[in-house]
Formats: sequence, C-alpha cells, structure tokens
Amino acid sequence: MDMVNVIETKRDGEELSTQQIRDFITEYTAEIIPDYQAAALLMAIYLRGMTRRETVDLTLAIAASGNQLDLHDVAPLVVDKHSSGGVGDKTTLVVQPLVAACGVPVGKMSGRGLGSSGGTLDKMESFRGWSSSMDLPRFKRQLAEIGLVLAGQTAVLAPADGKLYALRDVTGTVASTPLIAASIMSKKLAGGADAIVLDVKMGSGAFMPNLEAAKELSRIMVDIGKDAGRQTVALITDMNQPLGHAIGNALEVKEALATLRGEGPAEFWAHCQDVAAYMLLLAGNVDSLEAGREKATAVIKNGRALEKFRQMVVAQGGNASQVDDPTLLPQAAFVEDLVVPRAGFVKALDTGRIGWAGVHLGAGRLVKSDTIDHAVGFILPIMVGDKVTEGDVIGSIHANDAEKLAEARAELWASISWSETAVDPLPHFYTAVT
Amino acid sequence: MDMVNVIETKRDGEELSTQQIRDFITEYTAEIIPDYQAAALLMAIYLRGMTRRETVDLTLAIAASGNQLDLHDVAPLVVDKHSSGGVGDKTTLVVQPLVAACGVPVGKMSGRGLGSSGGTLDKMESFRGWSSSMDLPRFKRQLAEIGLVLAGQTAVLAPADGKLYALRDVTGTVASTPLIAASIMSKKLAGGADAIVLDVKMGSGAFMPNLEAAKELSRIMVDIGKDAGRQTVALITDMNQPLGHAIGNALEVKEALATLRGEGPAEFWAHCQDVAAYMLLLAGNVDSLEAGREKATAVIKNGRALEKFRQMVVAQGGNASQVDDPTLLPQAAFVEDLVVPRAGFVKALDTGRIGWAGVHLGAGRLVKSDTIDHAVGFILPIMVGDKVTEGDVIGSIHANDAEKLAEARAELWASISWSETAVDPLPHFYTAVT
Repeated sequence: MDMVNVIETKRDGEELSTQQIRDFITEYTAEIIPDYQAAALLMAIYLRGMTRRETVDLTLAIAASGNQLDLHDVAPLVVDKHSSGGVGDKTTLVVQPLVAACGVPVGKMSGRGLGSSGGTLDKMESFRGWSSSMDLPRFKRQLAEIGLVLAGQTAVLAPADGKLYALRDVTGTVASTPLIAASIMSKKLAGGADAIVLDVKMGSGAFMPNLEAAKELSRIMVDIGKDAGRQTVALITDMNQPLGHAIGNALEVKEALATLRGEGPAEFWAHCQDVAAYMLLLAGNVDSLEAGREKATAVIKNGRALEKFRQMVVAQGGNASQVDDPTLLPQAAFVEDLVVPRAGFVKALDTGRIGWAGVHLGAGRLVKSDTIDHAVGFILPIMVGDKVTEGDVIGSIHANDAEKLAEARAELWASISWSETAVDPLPHFYTAVT
Repeated sequence: MDMVNVIETKRDGEELSTQQIRDFITEYTAEIIPDYQAAALLMAIYLRGMTRRETVDLTLAIAASGNQLDLHDVAPLVVDKHSSGGVGDKTTLVVQPLVAACGVPVGKMSGRGLGSSGGTLDKMESFRGWSSSMDLPRFKRQLAEIGLVLAGQTAVLAPADGKLYALRDVTGTVASTPLIAASIMSKKLAGGADAIVLDVKMGSGAFMPNLEAAKELSRIMVDIGKDAGRQTVALITDMNQPLGHAIGNALEVKEALATLRGEGPAEFWAHCQDVAAYMLLLAGNVDSLEAGREKATAVIKNGRALEKFRQMVVAQGGNASQVDDPTLLPQAAFVEDLVVPRAGFVKALDTGRIGWAGVHLGAGRLVKSDTIDHAVGFILPIMVGDKVTEGDVIGSIHANDAEKLAEARAELWASISWSETAVDPLPHFYTAVT
C-alpha cells in the first residue's frame, strides 16, 4: 500500500477507504509500516477526526488483527460490560455475579490497573490463591459450568490495539475520540460479545472531563457496536466523586462483598442495579429495566449473587473463607481516621487526585512493573453536598508505611474543597446513549 | 526534554518556546528523540503552523546543528542566491560570474538535481575534468584568489535538515511553508551569507503552484533572514514555462555561455540581470537596481563575466577549450526537430511535465544513485502566447537512445496545449518581497 498517500489523505481532511484502513492495520501489525508513518497518521487522525464509517472500519480492522472469540458453544448470548475507568470503580465485582446469578453467563477478560484507575484483576488478587490465568478451553469450561469467569487475556485479542496504544502514549495522540472508541470497542468485538453495556465515566476522576465529551465518545462507541451488529448501550455516570466509599484493592473487595450481601452504600448499589438491569435487558433475560432492577434485587436477597461470586473464587483457586469472612482479606498495619478540622459543606472532590493518592500509597501502579499492596487505600464515605461538623470522622486511611501515610493524608485533604454555604449533591446518572 | 509535552503543545495550536525548539533539533540530530515522535510533531506543525518567532527559532536551530561557516577572512561581505527550483533554471551559471566580475566575491555550495529540477553541479560537470569537490581551506583560497567558487558541500552544513527532510518525505509533511522556509534558510545561514537573494519560482514547473503560496513562502523566508540579521530579498518569478530555451545539462551550459557572451534569450538575460542587480545592491556594490543592471550589462559587454566563469572552470580542473568552443561540450547522438502539426497559439506549457520528460531522457535523476547523461535534453524556444503555423520548427529533442527519444517526444507534445485564438504572454517577474 502507499502509506504516504494514506497519510496525505487524512492530513487533508479527506475520508480513508475501508481498504486503506484495513491495509494500514494489517501492515502496521506485521511491522511492514514503520512507527514514524503510523505516528504521522495518528496525529492527522487526532487533528482531522474520523467519520463514523472510518471509525467502524478501524475498530473492525483492529478486532481482526488477532484471535476473534466465538463463545456460542458455551453461552447462547454473550453479554459484556466495560467501564471507561474511575476511582473506586468495583462495579464488575458486583454486577458480573449478579447477572450470572440471573442466568446470563458472563465471561470477561479484564486488564490490570495503570495510573489512577484500578484494575479488576488486581482487586481479585486480594483473595489468597486466586488466579486470572487460564487457557481458552478452561475459560470456556468454567463459563459453561458456573456461568462466571474473570480472566486475564486467554487469547491474543486485538494485538494492533496494544501496539497502537503504546505509540499513541508517546506521540501525544491518546485523547482522540475515534481512537479511544476504536481501542475500547475492538477488544469487546474480538472478545465475542453479542451485547455490550458501556459505563462511561465523566468528571474529575475520569478520562472524559465533561458531559459533552462523554456523550461524543458514547455516541461513537454505540454506533460502532450497532454497525458491527452488536446490541450496545452507553450509560454516562458521574466520576466527580469516587464510586462507593472504598478505594484500594482489598477495601474495594470488602465493599463489593458487602454490596452482594445487600449492605453496600446506597449510591453504589443503585449504580450496580442499573448496569445489571441494562445487561439483563440486552440479553433478553428481562422485558424492562424495572424488571431487571427487581431481578437484581432478588438475587441479592436470596444470596445467589454472593454464592455465584463464591463459586468463581473457588473455581479460580481462591480462598472461600475470605469470601465468608472478609476480615481475613489483607489488612493494613496503620488505620488512621480522617477528622474534619472545621464545619462546612463538601464542595468538590478532586477525584483524580484521590486516585493518585491511592497509587502513591501502594494501591496502584505508576509503571507496569510496580507491585500492588492489596491492603492499602481509603474509606471515604463523604459525598459532595454533605454537611460536616468540626471533629466529625469522614473516613480513614489504610497504610503499611508511616511516611506514605503522611503523604497520602496531605494529598487527600488537598483534594477536598469546602464551602461555608450549602452545596447541591451531584447527580449519579446523566443519560443513556442508545 | 519532555518530547510528548512538546508534541501536545503544538498539537493544541500553542506556541513552542525557543528552548523547546532548540532541544528538539539537538536531541533529534543526536538520535535521542526517535523518528516516530519527530513524525508526530512534524504533522502537528503541518496542520497547526508556526509563528514567525517559532520558524526563526527552528531555522537557527537547524543551522546550528552542524558547522557554521565564517568567510569574512576572505570576503568582506558574503552574498548568496537561492532558487526554489525550476525547469531550465541555469541562472546561477550566469549570475555568479557576473556578480564576481563586478567585484563581489561569490562562494556557493550547491546541491545536485533530484526530480524535475536540475542541479548546478550536474550542469557544470558537462565540462571535462571539472570538479566540485574541495575542502574548506581550498574553497576559501579560490574565493580569495578569483572571487568565484561553485563547490559541493565542503563542510557539514545543517545536518538536521537532511534528517528532517528524509522523514518529511515519507510522512506526508513536505509541503509545509514553515518547514520549507526553515529548510532553505538554515543552509543559507550555516553557509555564512550576509545577504541573500531568493529566487522563488511559481507555476506549473515549480514547487509553489500559485502567487499566494509563493508570497507566503517568500514572506516567511525574508522574515527569517531579517530576524537572523541577514539582508534578504525574495523575487517571485514565473515557472509556468521553462526558464530560457535549453533544458538539459550541456544544453543549459551552452545557453549560459551564450548569455555570458551577450547572446542569450532576452527573457532569461532579463532574469539574470534582475537577480544580479539585487545581489549587487544588497552587497553595497551599487546604489540602485538600475545601476546594478547597468553594471551587469557592462561586465557582459567587456567580456569580464565570461572571463570570470572561465577562471572558475580552470581553477576547478575543467577544460577551458570547452568554454571557448561550446561545440566541444557533450553532444547527443540524435537531434530531432519538433515540427508543429497545426497552426495556433501556445496556450500553456505543463512545465513540470517537461522537466520530467527531460529526466526520463536521462538529463536528471529519479533516484539519487542514477547517473546523468549530460548531452540530452530539449531546446524549446516557444513561449506561452506564441503564434505558430503548421510546419514550424519550435524546438528540438537531443537524445542518445531512440526509444527514449520516442517517449520524450510523446511526453513533450502532451505537455503543450494549444488555442485557436490569441493568448496573452505570461509575465516573467511578479513581485519582490523585502
């Protein structure tokens, strides 16, 4: 292919053909096209954008760059969810067993956390012995047997995405809506999902800073899903404050277990209920969102959702006693209360900064090779609009190192801003893009 | 330096600092910054542009990436000219000896031809034994002794330019005005010119397709020259038809020798006179353009310009008898007249196509390793607006291969368009940008 011509076409704001996009991805994956030509094209895409057709073609080409799973031999209809990433987002830990308990099999390949967003696999590794590593036959066997799998990559899905992402990361071309959408959706398509619920986070702790940007990303992802023949919906939800109260791996697992017992924070439970209801609806398991929400509540009340989670932990080598008694999960050496120095109202939470404070404490990774301290993190039950009085305990820091605790304390306080006068609470759910 | 930050700054349409631009050029030349990051930045520059200050900083940084010549020990004021490239452009061969004969030393490092534009060194190598290869001490000695040198690169001037140009060529980022301007001017500045006359060609045989683009490039190059403390002027001249009648190395040398004898085509002589007059004016050798033109005419009439050219040929190992008797220069085996098949007016000449026809005949290079056939080319005295009658001879093809001759004939006829009705002649000189 004539790569210079492809670059010039996009540079001049014209549309690339399906064949040009396919050839680019094929030849870039095969290392025929060098990084410097791909970098020039990525910058041209960043600045000139892509049409819906181009974005769909790019997504399909990336999805086709490696294995494309077909799970229909073990699951009649495969439903998946994806979160665009946020602080305290342990939704998958609750929603997947919940949906599985309703009779819809859920096999998910998750990634690890990097930066201020945590990763589902890291959280699950709070369980002694639990492993995400398995081959595709075992993945399918577990999906058939218990209807729930939380695995790492069991097949080479969308290798072009990894190669492109690494290049975008060092060439200032990460924050491009069509490139982000193609990256997310290519992995979902290659993973074999028939229906996809996208949880798009918006706010100070999310990649999308405002509603407009979140809507734009949601629109194109839903369009890609539809054009690729998958039922897709995007829920735009708030990330101007952490999701739930717990931030940090074992702390989040405990909160997820509490939620599966029907004792989680109300807002977090409402979020899980919504995501589960959409998944059940898309899977044809219920006729309405309301029926989905009721069914989700039912499998919490009768203990089936927790039991499904427990089965998955055991199937993947984990310690079931830690499910039954969460106090056996990793505990930090130091737990320090956060005591409010003054009366007032919570005006805003710099959620990204709270996420980074957790990373610095050891709950996340600055670079891929960092190891995780599963015990550390924060419990932060305050929300924007809450009224506090001097001396109130508004949360706690869980640390294994006195120096890091001091740093995290300073970062945490700096991330909370206060008001003398009343502040409106934030909405949690903004809109669904279908 | 944080190269991702530099890329993001330009990507977002913001201005790069002097330090950022310097660091980029230094670290790219040293191969610390990889090609893929440079490619992303070049595309961002292509699409976002550069301010005058940024372009000047880029030019100075490229000029500083290698040796920077100081010729003031042998020439009190160094004046240089640069042509943006065109078909039949043998101006240097006439203007440099002419200016030298007026008492202004001219030491020029020239390049070779690639593509449809010929190169001065290739043309000069039509003289048996003539060599452009010399070291800097010899360059300076010849400049001091006879005031005229036409050399290849005697020092490593602006190595960053070569590296950047090679990358631009494969990443669709050639046609960016600030990048073109910085490329041209960096070499002039590194070459030690105090005064620079830029001959910016515009039209079907030039890089700049229209007056607007030529003015934009001229403006920024003149601004760079001024900001770098050099007297600079740009003359925008026509390249919608070849310059002079001859196209091809020895054919152009013969036309240059004829012009130095006062017998060249009128339009070509007028062009040489203008360029020389500006060079003499900038060098302080004359007080007005009119005086410059008169002085140029005088050194033609008294034979000093031709004598200066002869001295340079001899000093660089060439055969003086070929200067005295141009029929001794390489001659092609086949010379075929171009006979007009019909009456009419010359409507347009696709000058770039005529240049390429010459390249295919062997007068130029498709790739750097191609060898040149000095004898071949065209004599094409027709100009836009000329009236012809069926059977008129409007030029000739000079070839050493019957098959290539046939191809060139077809290409040449295809590059001429005709009109039944009268056509206005083209202007030669458009404007001077100072």
